Amino acid sequence: MSIPQSMNADRSVSLNLNVRGMGLSATLDINERCRQLQQQNHTVYKLGLGQSPFPVPAPVVEALRVAAPEKDYLPVLGLPALREAVAEFHCRQDQIPFHPDGVIIGPGSKELMFLVQLAYYGQIIVPSPCWVSYLPQARVIGRTDKIIPKSFGNGWRLTAEQLTESFERDNDDYRPRLLVLNYPNNPSGQTHTADELKEIAEVARRFRAIVLSDEIYGPLHHQGQHVSIARFYPEGTIVSSGLSKWCGAGGWRLGTFYFPPDLYWLRDAMAAVASETYTSVSAPIQHAAVHAFHTDVRIERYLWHARRILAALGSQCAKILIQAGLRVHRPVGAFYLYVDFSPLRRQLASRGITDGRRLTTRLLEETGVAILPAVCFARPPEELAARLAYVDFDGAQALAASENIPLHEPLPSDFTQHRCERVLVGVQRVAEWVTARN
Amino acid sequence: MSIPQSMNADRSVSLNLNVRGMGLSATLDINERCRQLQQQNHTVYKLGLGQSPFPVPAPVVEALRVAAPEKDYLPVLGLPALREAVAEFHCRQDQIPFHPDGVIIGPGSKELMFLVQLAYYGQIIVPSPCWVSYLPQARVIGRTDKIIPKSFGNGWRLTAEQLTESFERDNDDYRPRLLVLNYPNNPSGQTHTADELKEIAEVARRFRAIVLSDEIYGPLHHQGQHVSIARFYPEGTIVSSGLSKWCGAGGWRLGTFYFPPDLYWLRDAMAAVASETYTSVSAPIQHAAVHAFHTDVRIERYLWHARRILAALGSQCAKILIQAGLRVHRPVGAFYLYVDFSPLRRQLASRGITDGRRLTTRLLEETGVAILPAVCFARPPEELAARLAYVDFDGAQALAASENIPLHEPLPSDFTQHRCERVLVGVQRVAEWVTARN
Repeated sequence: MSIPQSMNADRSVSLNLNVRGMGLSATLDINERCRQLQQQNHTVYKLGLGQSPFPVPAPVVEALRVAAPEKDYLPVLGLPALREAVAEFHCRQDQIPFHPDGVIIGPGSKELMFLVQLAYYGQIIVPSPCWVSYLPQARVIGRTDKIIPKSFGNGWRLTAEQLTESFERDNDDYRPRLLVLNYPNNPSGQTHTADELKEIAEVARRFRAIVLSDEIYGPLHHQGQHVSIARFYPEGTIVSSGLSKWCGAGGWRLGTFYFPPDLYWLRDAMAAVASETYTSVSAPIQHAAVHAFHTDVRIERYLWHARRILAALGSQCAKILIQAGLRVHRPVGAFYLYVDFSPLRRQLASRGITDGRRLTTRLLEETGVAILPAVCFARPPEELAARLAYVDFDGAQALAASENIPLHEPLPSDFTQHRCERVLVGVQRVAEWVTARN
Repeated sequence: MSIPQSMNADRSVSLNLNVRGMGLSATLDINERCRQLQQQNHTVYKLGLGQSPFPVPAPVVEALRVAAPEKDYLPVLGLPALREAVAEFHCRQDQIPFHPDGVIIGPGSKELMFLVQLAYYGQIIVPSPCWVSYLPQARVIGRTDKIIPKSFGNGWRLTAEQLTESFERDNDDYRPRLLVLNYPNNPSGQTHTADELKEIAEVARRFRAIVLSDEIYGPLHHQGQHVSIARFYPEGTIVSSGLSKWCGAGGWRLGTFYFPPDLYWLRDAMAAVASETYTSVSAPIQHAAVHAFHTDVRIERYLWHARRILAALGSQCAKILIQAGLRVHRPVGAFYLYVDFSPLRRQLASRGITDGRRLTTRLLEETGVAILPAVCFARPPEELAARLAYVDFDGAQALAASENIPLHEPLPSDFTQHRCERVLVGVQRVAEWVTARN
């Protein structure tokens, strides 16, 4: 037997085929690219990664300081006090009964979504454009997926008709299915009406599909009027949420799933896998999160100010882009715009830009604005669209300024100009870039 | 199409077969059972879960307080300052060069072990008795595993001869293999000599097996004399470690892997999967961990006191059990004893105890002492052995008392009696229980 030169000789045989060739998650990748550009002293407008611009609310930070010595391994499903707080939070927000037993805490809802796909044996159904990680997860695990394309005309929203048609076409009524529904939506910033959710719930019930309802942006509905599909399909809905978006704590890594009693078998299977993988979420973080989910009046106020700022800024960004000839809907939640560049297809083609990735690469090189191409959101590579996250501003300063203006008044028209300047300059650069003559 | 009564109807078809029927990880399960017994006012001696009895060192807790507002998503591989600190830590401990590029930070080394098994396509080789989670992880992923049984006579240590024989028997020299080597060992408390590691390294090199060297108890070698196999097989060794054991921070969830340059392809594949699952480890925890891995003089002192206490207590526990007629080795690291009850097989059989699980269940019921049966450590169910974790004492008080005694002096003979009473009472109860007449 010959002795090999190097472990690298193994390369050709020893990687899981489902993992081979995978890059970093698109959002994390753009973040690391921006960091590199900034280190080379380039001006970068970071509208790529969807990180909340706001700080973690002060009472929650304080709670983490108090909880710093907590060192015990916590139960797999989560700290009991936190599971209670999460259930109460959903009761308040969604006006339906949630029981603490249904809650599982994970190191980010992304990890929980991976575990549910690993534990469940069924097809994952994802309306697109959609968040970047659902489908790569399915592929790592080797699950079958199905994409249902949404359209600009429908406000990038799935319709009950589309869903029925898609399920009927399978000719397999009892196929185990996991339908992912994300609203307010990443990447579109749009959400469903209660009536739409009711109709989708009926289809899901008819086909016994489990709905994985990703409501991580629920508390960032700009009018505070988020409605959950769990109201209409309580027995078959898993509600996904977490601290990352509404609480500004993306880097803390804490996500939550809520299961109805009919799905406790799936919760238990996930817990079994969790006990052999991440074990439990960091104890100090869980203790601190109890205070976040109790949402005292200070946190409520923080949320209302955050929403008011995001609503004003989102509208203004959309306006600038529409004036430049692009297609985009005014956002109603979260902090994203899904921008359709196709009305300028001919002009872009004359500059050698014929697909989404080339669009965003050239934009970054020529303007310093980082956004993510359509292909990252399970759209065709040739689609000339991109997600813009309007988050590159100092959220702490903006919140402080907003707090000086009574909540029942609108923000003055120059507020975003002063407090969210980088975002508006970045969006203005996009507008100028697309309308520039060759 | 009929409408089903309940989502539960799906049960028969919709769980991953590799997950179906899995329970909670054995160590977490015993922990939750102890909690329940205590809530019913039973006296429980918690010698089941392997959690460090010592608090997180004060400077590390203080560092977490300072880092509480850190909210950014960190790079997938980890905070650069932490990766540097981890590399330096290994350089100091192991006296071989480690480069920060080789480090990846995960939410516990258990999660990293899961990811490496998911990314790598090869057979996992585990000498047993072994830590509870390696094999359940392999089964969730659907990997082939191979157990090499170790023996009491060899001090529960794998020998190079055994390894060679096992590999040769495969008749497949180029099989991709991941050999898991854990020392100081859980569950045995034993470790390898440098010469033994050198011999094992030669076999691994000859067969191009990757060694996953689980050294999480390295800094808890009771004499501070841990040696890594990476010294002898640097190009093919992944070194696994973390904060959970030596730093008393199990609940914080932070583990580390170190890859040599020849294995960066595997590090990168793991990072890709990490970016689609846990994203990155909690930012405040990573910032705090920098201080732990820098191990200033206060942390060094903490470690020396912890080792002295564990050495004294481990010896004393072993002595009591040996006097009762059981077989056990005096521990040299970590905080475990792997106790062989087979010399009393006849007496136990006459009480209806014929396998490991019955042994530990009856022990818990009749004495309140919780320990884990051999079967949890990939041993045959009929093996009359169990792991005892000598950790149920107030580590903060014991450390404070030890600090009043100069480190060059031995602890007084009654130290453990006063400071680790629960453990000794529990072990005494085991001794009395096994020697009791029917």
